[in-house]
Amino acid sequence: MENADIAAALASPDLDTPCLVLDVARLDANLARMNAIVARLGVALRPHVKTAKCTRVARRAFGGGTGPITVSTLREAEYFFADGFRDLLYAVSIAPAKLPRAAKLARAGARMALVVDDAGSAQAVASAAVAEGAAFDVLIEIDADGHRAGLKPGDPRIVEIARALDAAPGVRFAGVMTHAGGSYDRVGAAALRAHAERERDAVVQAAAMLRDAGLPCDTVSVGSTPTLTFAHDLTGVTEARVGVYVFHDLVQSNLGVCGLDAIALSVLATVISHKRDTGRVIVDAGGLALSKDHGTAKHAIDYGYGQVCALDGTPIAGLRVVEVNQEHGLIAAADDAGAQAMFERLPIGARVRVLPNHACMTAAAYDAYRVIGERGLEVWERCNGW
Amino acid sequence: MENADIAAALASPDLDTPCLVLDVARLDANLARMNAIVARLGVALRPHVKTAKCTRVARRAFGGGTGPITVSTLREAEYFFADGFRDLLYAVSIAPAKLPRAAKLARAGARMALVVDDAGSAQAVASAAVAEGAAFDVLIEIDADGHRAGLKPGDPRIVEIARALDAAPGVRFAGVMTHAGGSYDRVGAAALRAHAERERDAVVQAAAMLRDAGLPCDTVSVGSTPTLTFAHDLTGVTEARVGVYVFHDLVQSNLGVCGLDAIALSVLATVISHKRDTGRVIVDAGGLALSKDHGTAKHAIDYGYGQVCALDGTPIAGLRVVEVNQEHGLIAAADDAGAQAMFERLPIGARVRVLPNHACMTAAAYDAYRVIGERGLEVWERCNGW
Repeated sequence: MENADIAAALASPDLDTPCLVLDVARLDANLARMNAIVARLGVALRPHVKTAKCTRVARRAFGGGTGPITVSTLREAEYFFADGFRDLLYAVSIAPAKLPRAAKLARAGARMALVVDDAGSAQAVASAAVAEGAAFDVLIEIDADGHRAGLKPGDPRIVEIARALDAAPGVRFAGVMTHAGGSYDRVGAAALRAHAERERDAVVQAAAMLRDAGLPCDTVSVGSTPTLTFAHDLTGVTEARVGVYVFHDLVQSNLGVCGLDAIALSVLATVISHKRDTGRVIVDAGGLALSKDHGTAKHAIDYGYGQVCALDGTPIAGLRVVEVNQEHGLIAAADDAGAQAMFERLPIGARVRVLPNHACMTAAAYDAYRVIGERGLEVWERCNGW
Repeated sequence: MENADIAAALASPDLDTPCLVLDVARLDANLARMNAIVARLGVALRPHVKTAKCTRVARRAFGGGTGPITVSTLREAEYFFADGFRDLLYAVSIAPAKLPRAAKLARAGARMALVVDDAGSAQAVASAAVAEGAAFDVLIEIDADGHRAGLKPGDPRIVEIARALDAAPGVRFAGVMTHAGGSYDRVGAAALRAHAERERDAVVQAAAMLRDAGLPCDTVSVGSTPTLTFAHDLTGVTEARVGVYVFHDLVQSNLGVCGLDAIALSVLATVISHKRDTGRVIVDAGGLALSKDHGTAKHAIDYGYGQVCALDGTPIAGLRVVEVNQEHGLIAAADDAGAQAMFERLPIGARVRVLPNHACMTAAAYDAYRVIGERGLEVWERCNGW
């Protein structure tokens, strides 16, 4: 669609606000960029579908087909499996009570890979595999940067757990994985490239330790959008798990991972009130529609709860959602002159698009995307919940 | 249910985590407390259903029947209307494009009250009433404390807009309303009582100005849980809109509105990882399950993203969710001794309940409540989206 057609479609009163708008041209550009990156690095792509939670987005990453994916909930696993995705990595340490549900997918034909960082959890997975008559692949989570979960690269428990898994019936010890979430505290190409090396080194070191102990380690998995974007050399790594790259967001822009014009996701909102005394234009997209994620709060550019754009997607300089209540978003300009222009440009009833701080959190408030594609607006469904 | 029975029900592996748990005994106590407050103050109760978004909760507020309610979305209006609620106030300035949808409810028999703070919006409502063949009641929003939307009490536009509405066919000018959202910056009984007076004075002054101008002003509506809880005298006010009081949350506790033992809502989570090196127990309730609302960040007690409780609802001193990723919640103790006790008390697979900062935001991630009632666990549905 041309810009003028996009603006006309999004202005239609048939479209209720707030709603979630996805720009397919930007999505496709983001997918192509990451495909080129992983091809250059020589690693397989296992996209993390937690961001889009949408099989149509994931299929686009594979040229229309399916491929290996990473999931953050068993509901995602079930939803993607039902649409033909067979190779599933549930990348959250498995709670023992979730094993029967995961086993059901494995029995139905999924390659179900689970993650552990604890000997007891590994034992629970092995026991469930036998009890449920299901085959699980199991990865050990490695802690690359102290961000969240996992065992540190040199921890002797890595070998102990792998050995126990390797000897257990019903499970296959498949390798190691890490998520360098600390990359979100790094800004710019040099810092993120260094963090990508740290992420790589953590799993490659763990894999070497396992192989030295005579154990297999087929999978050596890394993944975060900031590290993958700037990784220079992933020798020893087999696959990349990246999620938010499909949409990007203001946090990624602030980290230097993308430009504002790569952000494929926005919230369509309608102006509902003018508060000239406080310098605020109020829209009907608040904390639920935008999320309360203030991920840019400590960045060089604090976007509040979102950057305001015209309907064709062009950012309106200086206009940000500075405060949110449940169903109210308060937009302010950078200065008095900007405020005057804002009130003139955005009368009550006018619509804007708001770029989100954190695409994963914002998208989760919606059941579907309104997709700006070649053939006008389409509806693509999402899979929320657990 | 007895505490031991509650704990056993919530430990059942048949219950997937994360899920949203509602304690009916606490809900009922909260409802009874507010019913007593509004009875003492001599105002009608028009609960704001945006918190629970559940007809079963709203009916409980009216002893099993229906009554006047406040909604924050038209989807709530439609959902509650379908269950017999007839008197609906949509308490967000109406976007013109939403008027046909609101009109449909009015034609179906709802008393549909809308809110404006602008002459153009009022004109749009009046025009839509005629064009759509629907009768709307209209309230003017008053700004009591500079918090969000509305006209300041003495603003001459209040009379101008009311006069235009009073003269227009299809609409009835019904009165004035305000929401003293600034109450969330006040702590304790004295400050909140003073803020309740400010809220009352704002609408009572506007109502007097209207009546002095020969206009009707049947409805004089105020509402926030903190102000209503401590209001001493609401002379001149006709109704109270309160929302979060049904569940309460950590923000309300920090403001002095309730005790921790009044909080009826919690998120059930399972321990999935132990990080002894960083002093974190990790659960499967993260930013999506708890919300990223950090409403207690600047309070005397910063609860992080939630207070951790045992399965019977008893808070575990010092244990808070200090960090969240999408599906991971990181729990820390207040000190090293607490951390040691935490790892012993909460092995992998153990479950906890997490009290939310902001009940409205946390509940929005779920389609339903798991309700701890007299007859074991029930499922009560919610109405999300727009």
